[in-house]
Amino acid sequence: MEVISDPLGWQEAMEAARRRGQQVGLVPTMGSLHAGHLSLVRRARADCDLVAVTNYVNPLQFGAGEDLEAYPRDLEADATMAASVGADVMFAPSVEEMWPVAPGTTVHVAGISDVLEGECRPGHLDGVATIVAKLLSLAGQCRAYFGEKDFQQLVVIRRMARDLSLPVCIVGCPIVRTTDGLALSSRNAYLSSDELDAAPSLYWSLLAGKRAIEDRGETDPAIVAKEMESELGRQPHFSLEYAAVVDPETLEVPVRAEAPVRLLIAARLGRARLIDNLAAAPPGASE
Amino acid sequence: MEVISDPLGWQEAMEAARRRGQQVGLVPTMGSLHAGHLSLVRRARADCDLVAVTNYVNPLQFGAGEDLEAYPRDLEADATMAASVGADVMFAPSVEEMWPVAPGTTVHVAGISDVLEGECRPGHLDGVATIVAKLLSLAGQCRAYFGEKDFQQLVVIRRMARDLSLPVCIVGCPIVRTTDGLALSSRNAYLSSDELDAAPSLYWSLLAGKRAIEDRGETDPAIVAKEMESELGRQPHFSLEYAAVVDPETLEVPVRAEAPVRLLIAARLGRARLIDNLAAAPPGASE
Repeated sequence: MEVISDPLGWQEAMEAARRRGQQVGLVPTMGSLHAGHLSLVRRARADCDLVAVTNYVNPLQFGAGEDLEAYPRDLEADATMAASVGADVMFAPSVEEMWPVAPGTTVHVAGISDVLEGECRPGHLDGVATIVAKLLSLAGQCRAYFGEKDFQQLVVIRRMARDLSLPVCIVGCPIVRTTDGLALSSRNAYLSSDELDAAPSLYWSLLAGKRAIEDRGETDPAIVAKEMESELGRQPHFSLEYAAVVDPETLEVPVRAEAPVRLLIAARLGRARLIDNLAAAPPGASE
Repeated sequence: MEVISDPLGWQEAMEAARRRGQQVGLVPTMGSLHAGHLSLVRRARADCDLVAVTNYVNPLQFGAGEDLEAYPRDLEADATMAASVGADVMFAPSVEEMWPVAPGTTVHVAGISDVLEGECRPGHLDGVATIVAKLLSLAGQCRAYFGEKDFQQLVVIRRMARDLSLPVCIVGCPIVRTTDGLALSSRNAYLSSDELDAAPSLYWSLLAGKRAIEDRGETDPAIVAKEMESELGRQPHFSLEYAAVVDPETLEVPVRAEAPVRLLIAARLGRARLIDNLAAAPPGASE
């Protein structure tokens, strides 16, 4: 598998693939690949002719005091893993190659960027939208695969792509979990062994919310969120940031959960800030 | 010449041209074409295989109380004029076709969008950057032609295109003027006959600034700006918004005008708000 660091070289490689009539499948990542990323690469492999993985830790999406420096990086391991599931090319530019001059341009998606992660991590989703706009612009016409793990990010990217008419089909893919339910994340590497044992509670609290909606027929989003919060409260290592029941497109809290919703949760555990989410549909509403 | 209103149809037409090996030349306009626009079309015709003119009055770049409703529109005349100088296709979507859902996404270029026009017309340059990002995204790989008349807009678009790695070559083209120096603008249509007689003063005040720098060797931007202001003051119909001497890339006012600069001026005349600009280079500095 070829690794390209020069943006123009990569842009040309994607262009050349399309000229050969190939459908490009793009998997944007910040590296530190795990089985979640690999599921995206496999899906792209199944759908497309040329599978391109991007590997770039994007400083724009880290706030002051966040883990930009600590974020795990291992290009060689990433390249080996991506190749093992069929990636054809990896784009791994340096920050200087991506931004020879510090960028002045920001892409902002109003509303859906301003809640939840937007409140906890100001500027984070602008940084995501901006880098994804640039990566998609470099890639050109393609199918782009994103995990539902970062659900709000996926909603923001879909909206941006639609608003700006990017020539891209955005494909959301299911969360990959450990057998005990923990959603895979590069930041799980920050967890101690004890914290790893506690971590699946995040998923259990989502399940508690899902049960309230689907089994008990609870339609009050505040009561469902309270249920999720109580469940996580049983695990004292966690410090909750938010538990929310939202419309899966607008990310607004519905007055009543009478249509399919998304349950979202964010909490700190030791050095890590973890997020997770789950779909839920009230009885009679199809997901 | 074909007129297309459907964004996807237009995107496909541009894609098809590239597949035939054609270089696409794009001329984004808000319609109401005049000889300034036609000079862009001619330049695109000389450089490119397929010349596409976009004709869309973009609501995002009009502020509250501005002239969105009054802005002149005449698709048939525009199509005839564009065809007469060699345009192959015109993209003229309705607002509803461009934004079936009101857009949530904004492209902002910090710094250079926040001064001059950015101060006088808050949000205007964000509206420009956002629609141009969308038009360029729909067009795909191309050369895109913009007049230097909207100089700050050109600087913002260049910066956005570079920051987001849009697959586009941005080409700035010289201002077209009447024989008495008035820069052509669709908004000149708002001027009465008396106001049209007065309007060239805008250009004369730019010339006064240029003479101060080039002939008298004045290097203090404030003195040069004052000179421009005084010259415009001789014409009582005008109400000045700004006269400025700036770096042509950063749009910052230099401490001393010792390298090539851009002189910018904006003023109201009757119902119209007019802008104009001119390059100036101190003795010994090449433009």
